[in-house]
Amino acid sequence: MLSQADLDLLTQTGPGTPMGNLLRRFWVPALLPSELPEGDCPPVRLRMMSEDLIAWRNTDGSLGCMQNACPHRGASMFFGRNEENGLRCVYHGWKFDAEGMCIDMPNEPAESNFKHKIKATAYPLADWGGAIWIYMGPKELQPELPQFEWCLLPPEQRVVSKWLQDCNFAQGVEGDLDTTHVSFMHRVFDISNDNPGRRVNKQGKAMIHADGSPVLTVKETDYGFCYGARRHADDGDYYWRVTQYLQPFYSMIPSPNNTRSGGCWIPTDDTHCTGWRYSYDIANPIPAERRVAAGGVPRLIPGTFKCLANAENDYTIDRQMQKTFNYTGILNIREQDTLGTESMGPIMDRTKEHLGTADSAVILMRRQLMRMARQLQAGQEPYSANHGEVYRVRALDEVDAAADLGGLITRYENEMLRAVTR
Amino acid sequence: MLSQADLDLLTQTGPGTPMGNLLRRFWVPALLPSELPEGDCPPVRLRMMSEDLIAWRNTDGSLGCMQNACPHRGASMFFGRNEENGLRCVYHGWKFDAEGMCIDMPNEPAESNFKHKIKATAYPLADWGGAIWIYMGPKELQPELPQFEWCLLPPEQRVVSKWLQDCNFAQGVEGDLDTTHVSFMHRVFDISNDNPGRRVNKQGKAMIHADGSPVLTVKETDYGFCYGARRHADDGDYYWRVTQYLQPFYSMIPSPNNTRSGGCWIPTDDTHCTGWRYSYDIANPIPAERRVAAGGVPRLIPGTFKCLANAENDYTIDRQMQKTFNYTGILNIREQDTLGTESMGPIMDRTKEHLGTADSAVILMRRQLMRMARQLQAGQEPYSANHGEVYRVRALDEVDAAADLGGLITRYENEMLRAVTR
Amino acid sequence: MLSQADLDLLTQTGPGTPMGNLLRRFWVPALLPSELPEGDCPPVRLRMMSEDLIAWRNTDGSLGCMQNACPHRGASMFFGRNEENGLRCVYHGWKFDAEGMCIDMPNEPAESNFKHKIKATAYPLADWGGAIWIYMGPKELQPELPQFEWCLLPPEQRVVSKWLQDCNFAQGVEGDLDTTHVSFMHRVFDISNDNPGRRVNKQGKAMIHADGSPVLTVKETDYGFCYGARRHADDGDYYWRVTQYLQPFYSMIPSPNNTRSGGCWIPTDDTHCTGWRYSYDIANPIPAERRVAAGGVPRLIPGTFKCLANAENDYTIDRQMQKTFNYTGILNIREQDTLGTESMGPIMDRTKEHLGTADSAVILMRRQLMRMARQLQAGQEPYSANHGEVYRVRALDEVDAAADLGGLITRYENEMLRAVTR
Repeated sequence: MLSQADLDLLTQTGPGTPMGNLLRRFWVPALLPSELPEGDCPPVRLRMMSEDLIAWRNTDGSLGCMQNACPHRGASMFFGRNEENGLRCVYHGWKFDAEGMCIDMPNEPAESNFKHKIKATAYPLADWGGAIWIYMGPKELQPELPQFEWCLLPPEQRVVSKWLQDCNFAQGVEGDLDTTHVSFMHRVFDISNDNPGRRVNKQGKAMIHADGSPVLTVKETDYGFCYGARRHADDGDYYWRVTQYLQPFYSMIPSPNNTRSGGCWIPTDDTHCTGWRYSYDIANPIPAERRVAAGGVPRLIPGTFKCLANAENDYTIDRQMQKTFNYTGILNIREQDTLGTESMGPIMDRTKEHLGTADSAVILMRRQLMRMARQLQAGQEPYSANHGEVYRVRALDEVDAAADLGGLITRYENEMLRAVTR
Repeated sequence: MLSQADLDLLTQTGPGTPMGNLLRRFWVPALLPSELPEGDCPPVRLRMMSEDLIAWRNTDGSLGCMQNACPHRGASMFFGRNEENGLRCVYHGWKFDAEGMCIDMPNEPAESNFKHKIKATAYPLADWGGAIWIYMGPKELQPELPQFEWCLLPPEQRVVSKWLQDCNFAQGVEGDLDTTHVSFMHRVFDISNDNPGRRVNKQGKAMIHADGSPVLTVKETDYGFCYGARRHADDGDYYWRVTQYLQPFYSMIPSPNNTRSGGCWIPTDDTHCTGWRYSYDIANPIPAERRVAAGGVPRLIPGTFKCLANAENDYTIDRQMQKTFNYTGILNIREQDTLGTESMGPIMDRTKEHLGTADSAVILMRRQLMRMARQLQAGQEPYSANHGEVYRVRALDEVDAAADLGGLITRYENEMLRAVTR
Repeated sequence: MLSQADLDLLTQTGPGTPMGNLLRRFWVPALLPSELPEGDCPPVRLRMMSEDLIAWRNTDGSLGCMQNACPHRGASMFFGRNEENGLRCVYHGWKFDAEGMCIDMPNEPAESNFKHKIKATAYPLADWGGAIWIYMGPKELQPELPQFEWCLLPPEQRVVSKWLQDCNFAQGVEGDLDTTHVSFMHRVFDISNDNPGRRVNKQGKAMIHADGSPVLTVKETDYGFCYGARRHADDGDYYWRVTQYLQPFYSMIPSPNNTRSGGCWIPTDDTHCTGWRYSYDIANPIPAERRVAAGGVPRLIPGTFKCLANAENDYTIDRQMQKTFNYTGILNIREQDTLGTESMGPIMDRTKEHLGTADSAVILMRRQLMRMARQLQAGQEPYSANHGEVYRVRALDEVDAAADLGGLITRYENEMLRAVTR
């Protein structure tokens, strides 16, 4: 349960807010490369932490991003002409480069120096790991990019996807750090159908469904924390799932094979966010026929990033299916999650919640984020933002006799704490 | 004309408001039984006086109603699993009974006592008279149900209906206590067509349309007030209509035959309400072929309780019909009323109205409601909420020589003041 | 760049605001005559400067306009019965004349004098120059109508049109006073296609497109100001366009032939306005086949005044067309303008703009409006509102050797400063 002040601190990310300042210290996923497929293609709208921006790809293939409103008289640069390495407003022809400099002002006298006084807000973009990232913080503090394994792998070994969600970003992050909901929300009743790809016990049941109240242990690290869920497995062994929270909004999800995945939640504004999913095979290319399923994302309305299953259609719940086939009556796992995080309301009122021991990772994530935001207010820069190498970790899905997280970490330290050398 | 303070007092019914507190002392119609047709059927959303609730029917047929937001992390209980006499959140499996007690918490360790600390807001529901009623007040003050004649009759003698309206509840109540609008808004021009079922004069004209400025008399009673409208009838007699206002939001409407009806207006929130209509035959079953018409409700968008004729389509007004056939150019009487009450705005600004003698019942209803709300603030419980028997009254439609309401009441006291013994 | 206080002063026009008070001193275009085609036709809704009104045409053909909310209990007069020279509320039959007097109150006793106490807010309307105008100021200050040339011409020589726009009125006015945007926003690439009807140079290129950074001169007058844009033309001559700003929101646009046009922007409320366009031929009737094109308005959704090309469909921008055919990728010139003025946001934030020398007319218009609003607060009535004859001016499109506006005005003074005698 949070105080109203902490709730505001956690959830408000607009310009000048403490959490907004913190998040702006990090590179953040913003667009899919397919949204800006080639030089001089149409610019795209981008709303990030309550700022309206326009992104474009220059003639030479490089990327640009500036404020939506033309500095002159405020017309939207979305309608601009993307030409000759700059974006030109269609109202009076003012042209801007990727630094936000006004490089042409054809409606003023040639001798005018006015254009040299005009500087639009602009942010650097970077093509990295199958996404286009943005850095919205102070120029002199621009850090290196986070060295996620999925970013370091060749493109054919990963699938990166995104979609829009109608809630605050923190609800999304909380959902990814919530191991026990998997045992309920994502349960299917017929064990022969019990979430293919999951580790199964001798009875053929997914281990994650077989024990709904795992023992949880959390350990803080330089990237955030790792978080072990210990469930009873066969023959006295434990089924361990160790996942990571990586500051400020990333998660890692394990599987028993070579597949790994995870997600992050980027604030659009305080009541909307973009969900991202990265799935990757640590050893082999993902065949074309498996790439869509590998995405593991909600169904989208064609031509958009909006979810087909949403609050207006009750997430396509089928009450008959809910009685006979699975827990929610909704087929798509990610749509089940969307139901969970969106139906809490645009900004979940955490002054009224009741958290249990199963919510320890949720609690710690909030504490870390709020602590870092306050430290930044006091002048202390976030460590992880400036150390891309700490993101080189993997989640773990293992049956093991280790009784505590410490023991497990000793064995798998390379993967879980700072591993993955490439 | 009200002060702004009185306007707020009259119209605001959220938790903790004086009028909200008053209305929560009464049982209130909430759902049609057909919305919860059988045990373990899908739960339904219910918004009452700005509170978001979920209602369900247990396996054993009994009813439950609790807050929409799961006490754990706020996911909507609407998507919950209604099973084995309780509603279970699909996020982490927490299960609640009709008292709001958490009776299962499968994602916490078995030894945890956490579930015993969790109590959701829950309200009792009651199947009564063709509606499902809710009581949202203090548990220790829960009163008996109001003994309306239509509730006491066998089901085949009544029709109960509801629909959604986009305005504050008080506007709906005012509309039901406004006898003179019937002479105008509901007028048809061809007297052979003049509202079948109404009492007609020797010229074949509905008496209620023949005299548009009746003499009104109001008499306060223990249930609210009765209210006589005296119109000129044939041969020096008077056409009397005596109707009731029953606290806090009911009305009774008479007819010259065995049919009676009335309505009430339940706050959804401060700018929306649910209109209810009860029609009943005091002597005989209503035949199947007359049950729809007997409802006397607006046309609904199929599968919803939303009105087909609404502000967006100008209530389907037909200007040619308005010139030649009836006063409004709208066929359905209840849609005519909706036009009247909704077009005043979401909360009618009563600081700018100009009330005449024809509005005496409207004025008295407001006074009673505001007086009771203030008395409750001062510690005085409302009498009518705790005396279900005072609702055993009937409206009157009669031609009589009585010149004043007192005389009429003497003659019909049993019906109008506390009558109807069954 | 404006302070927030000046921004509010400029853009807020509701009852009691300084700018609202100023604009209410003028007659203002409100409706097209075709919206009230004949006596006793259906009344129409009219929202003007945040006031909700209903206009109607009486049985005798005269016009009436009153508050939307019936003074009795607030039902909308839109649904009223327009009959026998008055508008009658359908709720209780109260009837009002064009002065707002209650002339019938049939639901009150005949002897009641209540109706004489009821006076609705009513405003005079006037049929003038192909529009219906409204005056919403103090009755004792009602001025004469402005003597625009298009109002004085016979109907067959003019086309008057209107449409709805989703932004503050001042953005519309600014767009009409912005000569340089024509060189960019309205440019087509193929000079054989270069905006037919424009004055072309020896190379066949529209002169207004050939020089995008004209020298601008502004001269204040009793109607507002005239504003000369001097572009380089052939052989050392200048291409002059001299247009007018006429208080409070009118503009004049020249052409090289007998056609003239212009527009004005009427506040619906602070975030919506109605755009008007008047096109006229100063010498001859406009043939039927040219009247639609002469309107020069955006495409409308049939049966409405809403624009087909709007923010929801990105103004029907075609990115391929934008690369190859014209500057915006949008065909309709007025829709190009709509993009410019609407995409600034509902109320353009002028605390963040950067105005150059090309914006001198925009700057002066704001100054005049704010100055007049402040003067009115100090008790000084606006001169132009009370001198209809100052509106008898014409815009100029001419190739001339005059090097400064003064010289040009000397030659064309009759047309530009107070001319057009009829």
